Amino acid sequence: MNLLQQLYRPSLAMLTDLYQLTMAYGYWKHGLAEREAAFHLFFRNHPFDGGYSIACGLQTAIEYLENFRFEAADLAYLGALRGADAEPLFDDGFLEYLGDLKFDCDIDAVPEGTVVYPHEPLLRVRGPILLGQLLETPLLNILNFQTLVATKAARVCQAAAGDRVIEYGLRRAQGIDGALSASRAACIGGCSGTSNVLAAQLFDLPVFGTHAHSWVMTFPTEREAFDMYASAMPNNSLFLVDTYDTLDGVRTAVETGRTLRAAGHEMLGIRLDSGDLAWLSIEARKLLDSSGFPDARIVASNDLDEHLIVSLKQQGARIDTWGVGTKLVTAFDQPALGGVYKLGAIRDSDGTWQYRLKLSEQTIKVSNPGILQVRRFENESEHRGDMIYNEAAEIDFGQGATMVDPADPNRRKRFDSSVASSDLLVPIFRDGAKIYEAPKLETIRQRVQQELQKTPAASKRFENPHSYPVGLELSLHERKTSMIQTARGQA
Amino acid sequence: MNLLQQLYRPSLAMLTDLYQLTMAYGYWKHGLAEREAAFHLFFRNHPFDGGYSIACGLQTAIEYLENFRFEAADLAYLGALRGADAEPLFDDGFLEYLGDLKFDCDIDAVPEGTVVYPHEPLLRVRGPILLGQLLETPLLNILNFQTLVATKAARVCQAAAGDRVIEYGLRRAQGIDGALSASRAACIGGCSGTSNVLAAQLFDLPVFGTHAHSWVMTFPTEREAFDMYASAMPNNSLFLVDTYDTLDGVRTAVETGRTLRAAGHEMLGIRLDSGDLAWLSIEARKLLDSSGFPDARIVASNDLDEHLIVSLKQQGARIDTWGVGTKLVTAFDQPALGGVYKLGAIRDSDGTWQYRLKLSEQTIKVSNPGILQVRRFENESEHRGDMIYNEAAEIDFGQGATMVDPADPNRRKRFDSSVASSDLLVPIFRDGAKIYEAPKLETIRQRVQQELQKTPAASKRFENPHSYPVGLELSLHERKTSMIQTARGQA
Repeated sequence: MNLLQQLYRPSLAMLTDLYQLTMAYGYWKHGLAEREAAFHLFFRNHPFDGGYSIACGLQTAIEYLENFRFEAADLAYLGALRGADAEPLFDDGFLEYLGDLKFDCDIDAVPEGTVVYPHEPLLRVRGPILLGQLLETPLLNILNFQTLVATKAARVCQAAAGDRVIEYGLRRAQGIDGALSASRAACIGGCSGTSNVLAAQLFDLPVFGTHAHSWVMTFPTEREAFDMYASAMPNNSLFLVDTYDTLDGVRTAVETGRTLRAAGHEMLGIRLDSGDLAWLSIEARKLLDSSGFPDARIVASNDLDEHLIVSLKQQGARIDTWGVGTKLVTAFDQPALGGVYKLGAIRDSDGTWQYRLKLSEQTIKVSNPGILQVRRFENESEHRGDMIYNEAAEIDFGQGATMVDPADPNRRKRFDSSVASSDLLVPIFRDGAKIYEAPKLETIRQRVQQELQKTPAASKRFENPHSYPVGLELSLHERKTSMIQTARGQA
Repeated sequence: MNLLQQLYRPSLAMLTDLYQLTMAYGYWKHGLAEREAAFHLFFRNHPFDGGYSIACGLQTAIEYLENFRFEAADLAYLGALRGADAEPLFDDGFLEYLGDLKFDCDIDAVPEGTVVYPHEPLLRVRGPILLGQLLETPLLNILNFQTLVATKAARVCQAAAGDRVIEYGLRRAQGIDGALSASRAACIGGCSGTSNVLAAQLFDLPVFGTHAHSWVMTFPTEREAFDMYASAMPNNSLFLVDTYDTLDGVRTAVETGRTLRAAGHEMLGIRLDSGDLAWLSIEARKLLDSSGFPDARIVASNDLDEHLIVSLKQQGARIDTWGVGTKLVTAFDQPALGGVYKLGAIRDSDGTWQYRLKLSEQTIKVSNPGILQVRRFENESEHRGDMIYNEAAEIDFGQGATMVDPADPNRRKRFDSSVASSDLLVPIFRDGAKIYEAPKLETIRQRVQQELQKTPAASKRFENPHSYPVGLELSLHERKTSMIQTARGQA
């Protein structure tokens, strides 16, 4: 059983929009169900007005795909749906077809933890159009959310500048999986752990927690509450000090810390959960230091995000660990990534690839035709640019290559053959068989840090980040331009 | 198997914060685990700067509670956790205790679909303090999110003023359950259905969908695409008309509609997904009417929320059905409800209830002590006020009652005995046994509409809504005041 199966019902094939099934029915009815097509999943804008994003969610998508099948109960449900004339929406023959349907696509994707940019496919599906269509919604659901949260976490950890960040968001997350997937993505993005026990168990994450205000309120005095906690759990003794008066609470923690020390244990530290965290942490640090607890950590929480952390650090806050909850797991300031999934090519009846694009009044929103791949150019210290190209066009990067800015065709950039480059999308499934060895979560987490080190500093800043160069390979640009002209009847 | 079990692993007892377990351990270690306590779940502010909220999520919470238990694998995981000294965090005796732990609390809660206000308990847990503490996080996770989305849906449907609203958000939702729970809550809040097939199957919701842009892009021409769709699925023929040029698309739909009609079927309508929805819908309506399709519906989607719907209606848009996705299922403008869960009372060693409150510098944020209930006063046409009272104080509402505004103790309101009143929290579990017959979703949905009809109009408006009167029963106010004074050392 994979993780998704441990948590959920065996197959989530029904987790899709009805229109995917009605289109599937149309393809089947017209004998087009197995016509090969290529779809690409990408987003058009970084979240949070940022300059980079972190690809995340592939492992969950793989688990979803590995277990894709329609169960008898699903088919019975679909068979009972009715159209406007009260006749069944779907033929029995189609339901039988769905019952026999096996996931047999080729999937290529950007490994989790890769820094990615607008318009670059994060994932490509190549296979029967019927199947490619059914997969659109669940793949978007999974990758949109985890990419969003991993990106948020990377920003929060960037603000924390090496301090430990713990994800605390379960109680305000958007449902059960809104919490579990967020814990996973947060740790990939850079968090050191979570408070969520089930997420920690499922994804093998470090888990943290000590006590809440309610513990303190249970006992007649704060001192008694801290002592009772310390005697029960001397090896996990971090005290929440703001139930009554925060600095009095720190003094109480010091007293309990002395009792602990006499018994051969060391207090881990204190947690601040309200008030002026800059001032309180400075004062708490002085109290702890002057009382002989220079190693006691100060943990802070209370509606933190990357901007508040930057501000607190600028004010000289003495905080060692940042507990970040709601703002992280719900990606509060932009709670959805606008990922889309577009048809790039379909084979016609004689087997020739026909390229497709989705028009829009804004050229930048016109999707890219072809079977797309992304080439990243880099030197030893820095990523220099990403080029979207048509894999079917067999570009020889050994000769150098030119890319065109999709927002301004007069902005072009040439990489000569001396610049190292490699493809971002790697094979995940071939004919439905998984050929990818997914890395462990800790490896993905390290990858994020390595990737961010090579990301230009100007693209990482929070205020008006510089747009990292992403362009269309010249022949793709030319093909797209000509297709747009034709479609608009201007050719 | 209940619905949650159909979707998830058998028990979700591990879906909690670690600090709930470390506190549980402390209670157990000190022989306090079974000390009876009362906890209340409530929120402090309406979401979306609104004037009302819709309680939602109780059924999911019931299913969670009915299946609460720690499995052997969970205990093994907890047994492997280590403290700062690399010794186990938890004793074996505690793990055995958890393994034998049964949910045996009394739960009272506001029925789903009830209009609720800040500071009112939505749910009350009375039982062993250890268990009450473990339940905090999952109950908040479930009720916070569904209440948030049901409230958003009610607002969107209020803006739509009787038009049909369909939830379309699966692809941008926050994870799998972020979508499923949102579909459920959206339909409770007033939506007529969803595009999410699995949510429809699990919760018995109407499900809608026809085709996407990719269908149109698959065929050489829009006309061919519409004809192929119509011939495959003549009883579900609603055409997405904006792949190329929207009004040309409407004309094409009319042509296909005529073919359909000749074959004995009627086109359901068209969908607009981009552009100026006000102008396009007016022009599309004219085209459809003048071509003999006055009954064809116009569906619109594209980042809609309650404010855009109000604006489109003010502009005279001719839209029959509103497809609302991202902004609804992520509650985009406020993606978390700040529900909290506070200890109200605990029995001391001789069995006497000791009331508890959580202090705060702001009086309005101080929690209410006692074993709380909410009394709603109303006349035949309107809710008049809600009074939070201590159930243990045995108030005789037959004598009338006075309530005090928690934000301003000089504002008081008296209801005499002639005003009808009833308790909002109803018994759900007694000693862990469910004694509540949960209503069907359609019944809950109707309850929302009945409740909103009795909600004062001034509290329902979007701009600067009037605060509906919610107060503390006089003796509760006095007790709280005296406890605050004592705690602050001013008594």
